[in-house]
Amino acid sequence: MPHRSRLAVLLLDLPPEVHAAGTDFWSAATGNPVEPDMTDPAWHRLGMLGGRLSFEVQRTGEGTPPRWHVDVETDDIPAEVARLEALGARRLRHVEAADPQGRGLCQMTDPAGLVFCVVAVQDDEAFGRSARTWP
Amino acid sequence: MPHRSRLAVLLLDLPPEVHAAGTDFWSAATGNPVEPDMTDPAWHRLGMLGGRLSFEVQRTGEGTPPRWHVDVETDDIPAEVARLEALGARRLRHVEAADPQGRGLCQMTDPAGLVFCVVAVQDDEAFGRSARTWP
Repeated sequence: MPHRSRLAVLLLDLPPEVHAAGTDFWSAATGNPVEPDMTDPAWHRLGMLGGRLSFEVQRTGEGTPPRWHVDVETDDIPAEVARLEALGARRLRHVEAADPQGRGLCQMTDPAGLVFCVVAVQDDEAFGRSARTWP
Repeated sequence: MPHRSRLAVLLLDLPPEVHAAGTDFWSAATGNPVEPDMTDPAWHRLGMLGGRLSFEVQRTGEGTPPRWHVDVETDDIPAEVARLEALGARRLRHVEAADPQGRGLCQMTDPAGLVFCVVAVQDDEAFGRSARTWP
């Protein structure tokens, strides 16, 4: 069965000590208003970049280093994780019920060691228009 | 005089030891072919994300940590640097003649300490359609 995926989200991981300053800065820098996530106080959205890439901020743990990361969204998490493993990524951990719909996600590292996540489809319309199909 | 800017580029900074593996992985992961930059062997393009965000890889120095960063493109670098400084960013260094057209760039840090660059307009068409105007 073919499945689909796309690089869908650019995220800022900010520890509590710089979370407000970093979120407010990137909101003002881009002109995108901050939208709090009503289901999770650790998440804020900063609108879209380039029309189809979601821009988000995650409040991480105290003392963790600020960083950027990306999410790949897919209609079949196990198939996409297997595809990316075959390309050289490694599984870090699986998180059950990571979103309000109870769907999981898989944290992985790329061949350079950078963390990224494979998540369920977040944006049906953008996914439908720009996801790629893998045989 | 008003000027314009937009968050325009998502970059992977990869040291030589993981440069090829990381570039090939993200090319295969997204399905975007690798386009070498004929004017600079340290740069590769990986097409566009979401239609208007350029996805690029920069080969950095040996032993430097792999990381993601972003570029803000603008039609007035001094005005944009001043705007972002007033929002809480700091100037790190100015690079003269950073591109083949001899245009400079300014490396800055955001309030969380993350490095980003303010660069001249790279993509006239995308800039024209999606840059914001600052009074």
